Amino acid sequence: MIKESPLFWPVVQEKNYCLILDETLIPEKIKYIKAYGVNDIVRAIKEMRTRAFGQYLCVLYAFLLTLEKNKGNDNLKMLQEFNRTASLLNSSRPTFPFKEVTSIFVKWVIEYKESAALYSVLKSRLSYMLGDIRAKRERRAQKAADFFPDKAKVLTHCNVSGELVKIAEYAQERGKSVEFFATETRPYFQGSRLTAWELKNSGFKVTLIPDNAVAEIISKGKVNCAIVGSDRSAANGDFANKIGTMQIAKVCDHYKVPFYVLTQPSKRLKNGKQIPVEIRDEEEILKFKGKSIAPKGVKAFYPGFDVTSVKFVTQSIPIGQ
Amino acid sequence: MIKESPLFWPVVQEKNYCLILDETLIPEKIKYIKAYGVNDIVRAIKEMRTRAFGQYLCVLYAFLLTLEKNKGNDNLKMLQEFNRTASLLNSSRPTFPFKEVTSIFVKWVIEYKESAALYSVLKSRLSYMLGDIRAKRERRAQKAADFFPDKAKVLTHCNVSGELVKIAEYAQERGKSVEFFATETRPYFQGSRLTAWELKNSGFKVTLIPDNAVAEIISKGKVNCAIVGSDRSAANGDFANKIGTMQIAKVCDHYKVPFYVLTQPSKRLKNGKQIPVEIRDEEEILKFKGKSIAPKGVKAFYPGFDVTSVKFVTQSIPIGQ
Repeated sequence: MIKESPLFWPVVQEKNYCLILDETLIPEKIKYIKAYGVNDIVRAIKEMRTRAFGQYLCVLYAFLLTLEKNKGNDNLKMLQEFNRTASLLNSSRPTFPFKEVTSIFVKWVIEYKESAALYSVLKSRLSYMLGDIRAKRERRAQKAADFFPDKAKVLTHCNVSGELVKIAEYAQERGKSVEFFATETRPYFQGSRLTAWELKNSGFKVTLIPDNAVAEIISKGKVNCAIVGSDRSAANGDFANKIGTMQIAKVCDHYKVPFYVLTQPSKRLKNGKQIPVEIRDEEEILKFKGKSIAPKGVKAFYPGFDVTSVKFVTQSIPIGQ
Repeated sequence: MIKESPLFWPVVQEKNYCLILDETLIPEKIKYIKAYGVNDIVRAIKEMRTRAFGQYLCVLYAFLLTLEKNKGNDNLKMLQEFNRTASLLNSSRPTFPFKEVTSIFVKWVIEYKESAALYSVLKSRLSYMLGDIRAKRERRAQKAADFFPDKAKVLTHCNVSGELVKIAEYAQERGKSVEFFATETRPYFQGSRLTAWELKNSGFKVTLIPDNAVAEIISKGKVNCAIVGSDRSAANGDFANKIGTMQIAKVCDHYKVPFYVLTQPSKRLKNGKQIPVEIRDEEEILKFKGKSIAPKGVKAFYPGFDVTSVKFVTQSIPIGQ
């Protein structure tokens, strides 16, 4: 039985609301936020209570909630509400390709706008997508496990929404041993709070390192591969991921350590230069748990992501192939 | 008038004790620890209440205190006490070359062990060294200022014990404009707590970045040079500095951004491979201000330094030349 981290499927639907795992409270608390509609969902995204794959699920569940709320309304109203849902999600955060996902659902409404079956078509298509994406992530995890060396010592950064646990489980199934070095991932500590937590809970050996120790770990041969997720990828294979990914890729390249990335391929953007990088509020650097950790009046600059060139990628592992 | 950061000269002597600036309390408090002898001094070093250049001053003042305590004792007793002082300092922390410094003073006692002038020779030599190192650091700061571009946008990491303020002052004196990007420098936040603090207090523009943003800042052309200090250097120019330095040097090299390092040349170690790297207690990663920031039971690995190859160094700026 393959174990599953709560992060692998961080949003679930209940009657007329969905529950979003509040990733900012892990590991102290496993708590879900009740979201009754797109406004609640967008707030959770902006406050980074959910992130990465959670954002994708949020989009799907936001449309499912919008769909249920407008069950019985006419198709024009459904289109208006789908457009409103799309628009709010599209302007929530800039790097994840919200528009690419939301436009699919808006197109569906337009396609079926004359049909009495609009509600049921949308319902079944959205439900299918949820099952499909789960199966595709499982398959991607299996493929990634194939790339791991027999005695895998894996460097990772930030958090891949539970997929790393799956990959490690599949690698073990194939008779490989797996251990991890996880960066802390300042400023949100996704590495310590999420990645180290889910790996340890699933019984894997994981060692936390400061983000600053990446080059030391790689140059001393303590890892024999690195794997990260991606928040957005371009047609040429460049990809955006949590800030700090680019320097890991460069150092891996220098020391000939294989560098793998899990991607969701897109043809909309030609190359990495076209990927918008979100600049987060400087408070996220200047304060920790509400308390100032920097001298008063000092400014900070916190780009949430960086864009890694495909030339540093040993192998992209795309979803759905 | 060139401004001076309290970090430029973080240890001072009073009657029968010395005062060590407690760098762990900055910027909340400017507080000095009273150290009555080598035991107090070694404790301050081990707890990282002082670091970098502070360690060098601590060695000098430890011997001055030992000298004063044994004034009037016979020369054999003085030698025993100098040996004891040296031995305690040598085993305090591994990366800074304590033995290279302490052995100088032990040799002086041996050289004058038959002389009635032992006390006064040691006193005047130690006092001379204190003045000499101050003058040499001023000169090194002037030389570094010459390397800065006319409109300097400088990336720095960790803290260079007040020397960066001097360099910036001298650069301004030469008509250059200077602004800084300082890494936070996890886990001790020397970048936010010390570097950003002293630069801002001296009126310089400084922007804090997460350690993870180094490659982003460099690749986007936001800086046109980088400068760091060094805790130890080898004869071939390889050097050890705060963990994270190596990845900055590599990324600078990739993007052709000049990378400068302030060094204290030594011929004792041939190359960087011979520099011992201190592994600090994992608690320093797992806790922040005494509170756990990682899941229970997770292990951490925190090398305090990394060793940068001379091939990534654009220019070493050695002291005393």
